[in-house]
Amino acid sequence: MIISKDSFLDAYLQDRRKIVEEALFRYLPAENNTPVEIYKAIHYSVFAGGKRIRPILCLAAVEASGGDMAPAMPVACALELIHTYSLIHDDLPSMDNDDFRRGKPTSHKVFGEKIAILAGDALLTEAFVLLSRAEKIRFSAERRLAVIQEIALAAGIAGMVGGQTLDVLSEKSRPDQKVLYEIHRRKTGALIKAAVRSGAIMSNVRENKIQALAVYGMNIGMAFQIADDILNVEGDRELMGKDTGSDNALGKVTYPSLMGMDCAKEELRKHIAAAIASLAIFDKRALPLRLIARYIMERKS
Amino acid sequence: MIISKDSFLDAYLQDRRKIVEEALFRYLPAENNTPVEIYKAIHYSVFAGGKRIRPILCLAAVEASGGDMAPAMPVACALELIHTYSLIHDDLPSMDNDDFRRGKPTSHKVFGEKIAILAGDALLTEAFVLLSRAEKIRFSAERRLAVIQEIALAAGIAGMVGGQTLDVLSEKSRPDQKVLYEIHRRKTGALIKAAVRSGAIMSNVRENKIQALAVYGMNIGMAFQIADDILNVEGDRELMGKDTGSDNALGKVTYPSLMGMDCAKEELRKHIAAAIASLAIFDKRALPLRLIARYIMERKS
Repeated sequence: MIISKDSFLDAYLQDRRKIVEEALFRYLPAENNTPVEIYKAIHYSVFAGGKRIRPILCLAAVEASGGDMAPAMPVACALELIHTYSLIHDDLPSMDNDDFRRGKPTSHKVFGEKIAILAGDALLTEAFVLLSRAEKIRFSAERRLAVIQEIALAAGIAGMVGGQTLDVLSEKSRPDQKVLYEIHRRKTGALIKAAVRSGAIMSNVRENKIQALAVYGMNIGMAFQIADDILNVEGDRELMGKDTGSDNALGKVTYPSLMGMDCAKEELRKHIAAAIASLAIFDKRALPLRLIARYIMERKS
Repeated sequence: MIISKDSFLDAYLQDRRKIVEEALFRYLPAENNTPVEIYKAIHYSVFAGGKRIRPILCLAAVEASGGDMAPAMPVACALELIHTYSLIHDDLPSMDNDDFRRGKPTSHKVFGEKIAILAGDALLTEAFVLLSRAEKIRFSAERRLAVIQEIALAAGIAGMVGGQTLDVLSEKSRPDQKVLYEIHRRKTGALIKAAVRSGAIMSNVRENKIQALAVYGMNIGMAFQIADDILNVEGDRELMGKDTGSDNALGKVTYPSLMGMDCAKEELRKHIAAAIASLAIFDKRALPLRLIARYIMERKS
């Protein structure tokens, strides 16, 4: 029986998603010490059907680097908590005012705005509780500190929060391609880059491999965002779990709206090619990273 | 010339406030990599005239423990960034909806709600950037990780965010004394306790001293909150920089409203006495901690 690369990747992603979700459930604060509303709000958003692409990329980078996956799991999960907090805050009425996310009502629609803000704050903070937990993370304290620094920088002003700020400010003035690139580099690219770099740091590989994974991560991150923009125009509403064409209706500047659909697709292909090329110094253990790059280009939702 | 304890403490607090503020300015993200609106919003709130009580307590705990103050400065400042983020988010229209803080318009009144939410998110994240920075912190990686864990737990669901959630939920049902205690233990006590415990951890003292400082910190934190409640009734509007009697007008449950003013003052005295008693195992280097305890009871703003 021949197993195609597609079905290998499908099985791989499904398996990884499952172990990440089991770990997330274990690592989230225990019910008995958590006010019930915040417990519900956190679980609602963390288990709302995310693709878990950041933790999966982190673990795949560990695998490609010949590292040990189990002790990297808290770091992988912390990335997902930070990603989830950013979605909750981005969706708030005073931010993007989104009612639906992944086909489900957003946190503030279900729990109210106060609890949604607090659930976001809690997830961001608990990510650092998890990253600094002594048990289970068997890496040296120095490497664990380097990972915290990597992730905090990517989530902060130099990364995600800075990107979201640029995005908010760009509503007033139509951004050009340079600004749009900077928004996505910070908002999406930085944390995905941190995910793969963290995997490499934990696996104690040489600096050239960490650098190669940084190039991979940034290109994958940009590609992910461009693919999102393209799907928003061409995607299937059913598969996406949200309305297609919404960016256009909101007058939002996207890659297709700025450079045309053909150029946006070409830009996507270039980022994927650069990501795959950066993996040349890795052996076959980087197969999942290579397949994930292709998957990002070809995904339908 | 005899220098009274009051004027010694005044000079001490003034000196510490100055070095903390200079350090805060140095540690905040550089202007060139920060979107201008978020740069302004962060500086506006961080330099809005806070008492810097958390960093000062952290440094005083280092001093009492015979540790080195300079390398503890990033940790002291990170505590102030976390405190400032919590004030910005607490003041939001969808939270407490406060227009003034320390006599100045709140962040969202000046910069709008989007930037205020993002400035809070940024400050919380940058606190962990600072805590995990390799340079300047000359403590062992293990102790630095222990400090990050201490502070993250105090800021998270077990501490500050959990306390704010209980506070928000208590608006619907008038809390009893047990719930009010739990709100303040988490919302105010936890981070102040973490401030002094972090100072002790960095100074590498024995566990009994860390424990003693935990008792000191929790009692100081509770006392601080009760004193706030009392000042809200009896304080001088000019000195406070906000309206007195506002808790009462909002029907907010406070220590004086729940147990009467006399009992609230007695409770305050008990916490201060317990805080000072916990310092018995420390020598004269704990004088600032002792005087700060008294200051919290007697402060007018």
